Amino acid sequence: MNENKTPTAPREPAPEPTLRRLPWYLAFVSMLRSRNIDHVSSTAISKELNVDASQIAKDLSVLDIKGKTRIGYRVADLEKALAAFLGFTSKHNAIMAGVGSLGSALIADTGLERFGLNIVAGFDINPDIVGTTIKNVPIFHISELAERRAAYNAEIGIVAVPVEQAQQVADTMAAAGVSALWNFTPVRLSAKSDVVIVDTSIYADLALIYNRIDCSRS
Amino acid sequence: MNENKTPTAPREPAPEPTLRRLPWYLAFVSMLRSRNIDHVSSTAISKELNVDASQIAKDLSVLDIKGKTRIGYRVADLEKALAAFLGFTSKHNAIMAGVGSLGSALIADTGLERFGLNIVAGFDINPDIVGTTIKNVPIFHISELAERRAAYNAEIGIVAVPVEQAQQVADTMAAAGVSALWNFTPVRLSAKSDVVIVDTSIYADLALIYNRIDCSRS
Repeated sequence: MNENKTPTAPREPAPEPTLRRLPWYLAFVSMLRSRNIDHVSSTAISKELNVDASQIAKDLSVLDIKGKTRIGYRVADLEKALAAFLGFTSKHNAIMAGVGSLGSALIADTGLERFGLNIVAGFDINPDIVGTTIKNVPIFHISELAERRAAYNAEIGIVAVPVEQAQQVADTMAAAGVSALWNFTPVRLSAKSDVVIVDTSIYADLALIYNRIDCSRS
Repeated sequence: MNENKTPTAPREPAPEPTLRRLPWYLAFVSMLRSRNIDHVSSTAISKELNVDASQIAKDLSVLDIKGKTRIGYRVADLEKALAAFLGFTSKHNAIMAGVGSLGSALIADTGLERFGLNIVAGFDINPDIVGTTIKNVPIFHISELAERRAAYNAEIGIVAVPVEQAQQVADTMAAAGVSALWNFTPVRLSAKSDVVIVDTSIYADLALIYNRIDCSRS
């Protein structure tokens, strides 16, 4: 299904905490590369990111890369290995359900492409939007979702519809054959067990910010 | 500082897991209201969201609202109390650092306003962007950040710059007096202890999706 898959793509599920730390290391080594630094040790990463050095060594052991005693990892190799392991160097086709304010913003965010996400089509019910394009991405009526999903071979369904429609749209996407739902709504979605659901909870994140600000103020 | 603060705004920090569940309840009761349903019980919420009913009762106990035996909570009251508690009915001024692809998408996402976020200004170094506006939000040079932050009385600094600049921009924002940093970069930011840092880790979320898809396929 994914012809761009790199040889280092993972076969075993990596633990979620590891997958959440690896992007920190990637961001750090990308910064080192931009400063023309050649090598980096677990200890140096540890100091900068405030993560235990032994934890870092363990996290990096999932990669096909070895550091050298004292000098550590080659920055360019480590960056490449991290990006490949995280799936950012492969292309993953995705469809977007809900082309309102957030959905259209995500389609317009070309930065996601650099992380391997290829949004191939959007779906909506609004006649003012259906038939238009955003940055060359065509927007179709939601009734065409199943057919278009298959034609584009899209693996990921992004859910950015109003809360009232979220579960129904998730059901439609799952029935249409997506492998994963990327949920930007505050709704707790359910799906059959072979469909991956990952929430990006921007509204919960906002609530957390507001609560912490209010409490530090009072 | 926040004149729109509602009487139910929290004074004690709420536990993060509670703050992450409350938006699920809010989304659910908003849906019920759209279907003209008047009352809802913890048991009904529990069934729909697959959260223990006693947990829900405990979570809702942070609100100034009481359910009635058997009929439960009034949907309209519960929705209002949840939105107020989560800070979504107050206005929180925010500034955006980095008006590239993601930053401009977030400024353009007017949906955030309905959750209390008021992005008042953007900052960048790109001369093609500085001096323009996005949906009436003015974009200034980053050298004006401290002065403008104070003038707008912005409490929240959103970080959407390239990884190489992320920590430096976070330092600038903290020094300029923001109470919270909302971090959209994959960089692990640090700040003095009275500055709240909340990460929205969209790239880690993507990595998690890719990993789970690859593993379910192999």
